[in-house]
Amino acid sequence: MPYLLDADKMYDLIIRNCHVLTPTANVRRNCDIVINAGKIADIQPTGQTSPTQARELVVANEQLAMPGLINTHAHVPMVIFRGLAEDVSLERWFNEFMWPLESNLVEEDVYWGMLLGLVEMIEGGVTTVADHYFFMDKAAQAVQEAGTRAALGWAVFGNQGYDALAKTAAFVERWQGQAEGRLTTWMAPHAPYTCDDDFLRAAVAHARRLNVGIHIHAAEEMGQTQTSLAKRGLTPIQVLEQTGVFEVPVIIAHGCGLLPEDITLLQRGGYRVGVAHAPKTYLKLGMGLTPILALRQAGIPVGLATDGAVSNNTLDVWESLRLMAMLQKHEARNPEVMTISQSLHIATQGSAAVLGLADRLGQLAPGYLADLILVDLQGAHHQPLHSVTASLVYNARASDVQTVIVNGRVIMRNRQLLTLDKAEIIRQVSRGMTRLAQRVPEKRIQVYNP
Amino acid sequence: MPYLLDADKMYDLIIRNCHVLTPTANVRRNCDIVINAGKIADIQPTGQTSPTQARELVVANEQLAMPGLINTHAHVPMVIFRGLAEDVSLERWFNEFMWPLESNLVEEDVYWGMLLGLVEMIEGGVTTVADHYFFMDKAAQAVQEAGTRAALGWAVFGNQGYDALAKTAAFVERWQGQAEGRLTTWMAPHAPYTCDDDFLRAAVAHARRLNVGIHIHAAEEMGQTQTSLAKRGLTPIQVLEQTGVFEVPVIIAHGCGLLPEDITLLQRGGYRVGVAHAPKTYLKLGMGLTPILALRQAGIPVGLATDGAVSNNTLDVWESLRLMAMLQKHEARNPEVMTISQSLHIATQGSAAVLGLADRLGQLAPGYLADLILVDLQGAHHQPLHSVTASLVYNARASDVQTVIVNGRVIMRNRQLLTLDKAEIIRQVSRGMTRLAQRVPEKRIQVYNP
Repeated sequence: MPYLLDADKMYDLIIRNCHVLTPTANVRRNCDIVINAGKIADIQPTGQTSPTQARELVVANEQLAMPGLINTHAHVPMVIFRGLAEDVSLERWFNEFMWPLESNLVEEDVYWGMLLGLVEMIEGGVTTVADHYFFMDKAAQAVQEAGTRAALGWAVFGNQGYDALAKTAAFVERWQGQAEGRLTTWMAPHAPYTCDDDFLRAAVAHARRLNVGIHIHAAEEMGQTQTSLAKRGLTPIQVLEQTGVFEVPVIIAHGCGLLPEDITLLQRGGYRVGVAHAPKTYLKLGMGLTPILALRQAGIPVGLATDGAVSNNTLDVWESLRLMAMLQKHEARNPEVMTISQSLHIATQGSAAVLGLADRLGQLAPGYLADLILVDLQGAHHQPLHSVTASLVYNARASDVQTVIVNGRVIMRNRQLLTLDKAEIIRQVSRGMTRLAQRVPEKRIQVYNP
Repeated sequence: MPYLLDADKMYDLIIRNCHVLTPTANVRRNCDIVINAGKIADIQPTGQTSPTQARELVVANEQLAMPGLINTHAHVPMVIFRGLAEDVSLERWFNEFMWPLESNLVEEDVYWGMLLGLVEMIEGGVTTVADHYFFMDKAAQAVQEAGTRAALGWAVFGNQGYDALAKTAAFVERWQGQAEGRLTTWMAPHAPYTCDDDFLRAAVAHARRLNVGIHIHAAEEMGQTQTSLAKRGLTPIQVLEQTGVFEVPVIIAHGCGLLPEDITLLQRGGYRVGVAHAPKTYLKLGMGLTPILALRQAGIPVGLATDGAVSNNTLDVWESLRLMAMLQKHEARNPEVMTISQSLHIATQGSAAVLGLADRLGQLAPGYLADLILVDLQGAHHQPLHSVTASLVYNARASDVQTVIVNGRVIMRNRQLLTLDKAEIIRQVSRGMTRLAQRVPEKRIQVYNP
């Protein structure tokens, strides 16, 4: 509901003279965005408030304001391993690279890796991430310091046992709603192929008790679905249903192995389910693609994601957006599908819905959380600017993001980070490179054998 | 052949303390690149020459030096229309958008559009472009001023007649070898579906007489190939062979409709043919993909391209490189094909070979032309830098390019353009936006009906 502005009142932050991407993917030119108590109080034609009414002023100079990008599935601290597993099959990627590499992890790596990934994401306009990793107290601490928003889950495999699962539930309790409400938490059992049915049921019990959702890998690619069908006559999605996972909100990564009957199951059940789509990973690992058009037709939210940087190499959601749009046209051999406005809807409201936050994130509108970014479209690669929205999907680069605001607080201004010490973070991560790059094949945290 | 450095001699330019991408996609750390008379004189460990031996010095601070990127097929001045034809089929793209829009073109538009595209390309590390457009004297003038390298062809349709063709040949004569040798020229009949056989034969006669090649669209997508087979029992490639086009060097854009027998024909003929690959256009217009793996197996050079910005939206060859690599893995459903070193080979030596310049461009090695760029890999999105070559293919952004050198001359230094006035160019292009965006359906320069 819109707030009424009072000419005498002071506001926390006014963003002066920006163009605004609307929830229907139009552009309102020359507006001021008025922010108070972490929320958008109003958006109005430039000049109706006075700069003296702002405790803090951002002069936008006609940059484009849009909702901060949301990364709906990542393993952010994996940036510490990026570039170490290239040009290999999915099976080798897990068994010869990723899982041996992760046996090198210590708690401190997650802290510095999370900070490094947050630097990259803030610089690229990502204000919220749904992260799925280990030693998550350190990740939460990093998010708290960075000033961003996150939905964090502590990943756990079935063979770690129920005590380990209980510890991930304790993490949920510790951090839910912390950091001025910027943190939400999720249970994060790894996948149906690494967690047996009873383990999944136990995860659901924790989630119900704590009133949180489950963030899980499922039907990552068609081979997994076929193996699951062959082994037990059920698709991974059917396994999730039978184990009660859909009784709570669910983020599914990545769904490239979804069958039409899985989508029907999700639709008929009316479950609170969203699918995280990380196309760069899928291309690089030859996993096929999530059936986004069918999911959207069934009313199931789809969001953008980067996955971890060992498959995706970057945490750049602009790349995910562009690839998502282009690949849907390519797969359908139809350039008229996945229009610019649909693509922007996925990048904003779709991604917010995957995280269950569509009522407060993903739109620039009064009452919504003040998570937003200013994008400079004056660069030669945007000019002449016949279409702002086409430029956002097909021309924009992470480096075009100038200013980042989360929860009403400016955390990057004109590309200067205000909360994190980038040089120190890179120095800390670089110190560990040799140790982190070691691979002892028999020393790995898990075996991929879906 | 390597030059011997003389301790007393002066050199035009020394790039001090860079890491160097080698022709085999390895990295030589901490080198100086010595440049004289527009060519690379030597590459040696840092410190063997004295800065006092350099007329000009670039301090690279361990940035990565690599060959300047080569855009093997573009319509650069089309940047003036970018964003005006989105989410439409290939047929509508041509008939309702592109060709009506191009009826607005005047000579001056090509000049300013070419300059704007050159700004974007220089800022993104592109040092050479094979351009295929209209009013090409203006394009040549722009390249001359920008200081870049180009292979220019004046596009012509069969229905414009033989006088028009002769004028494009006169352009070839006027500009071949001009701008200190930075300009080469090509005959540029548009496509076999817009030029009849006699017209193609006439283009070949001009090319032979002038000792230049032919840059032409052919087998752009499979529908064109099927139509050609249905209409006359020949594929577009067979048409080119029958009309003698392969008697001269040829750049084929885009080849998404190449059949296995076309590739065999090109291989058996031993023709001097290269294929320009612009994957972003193909995804956006649902055109399928060039069969790159088969072409390379047949020994036919493949290069990277952007096509025009009305389909590709940008002139960013990093994007073409990344998409090319990932899409080959995706199409083959095999992550082990199109490795990083193969991808970098295509981006450098492959693209040089498509332009017939493999003996002087595409490698950093003594005797090669001094067209090179310095790339900053210190950004958070590259860190920690476990693999330089992985970062070049999967992480690098146009905005990471810091310094650009063409023919031994620095044309961008620390992201400052030294030859062009960006603000003035954008101002000039923007002035024409309303006029350029007009579309009168019956007023179009050509009809798409392959």
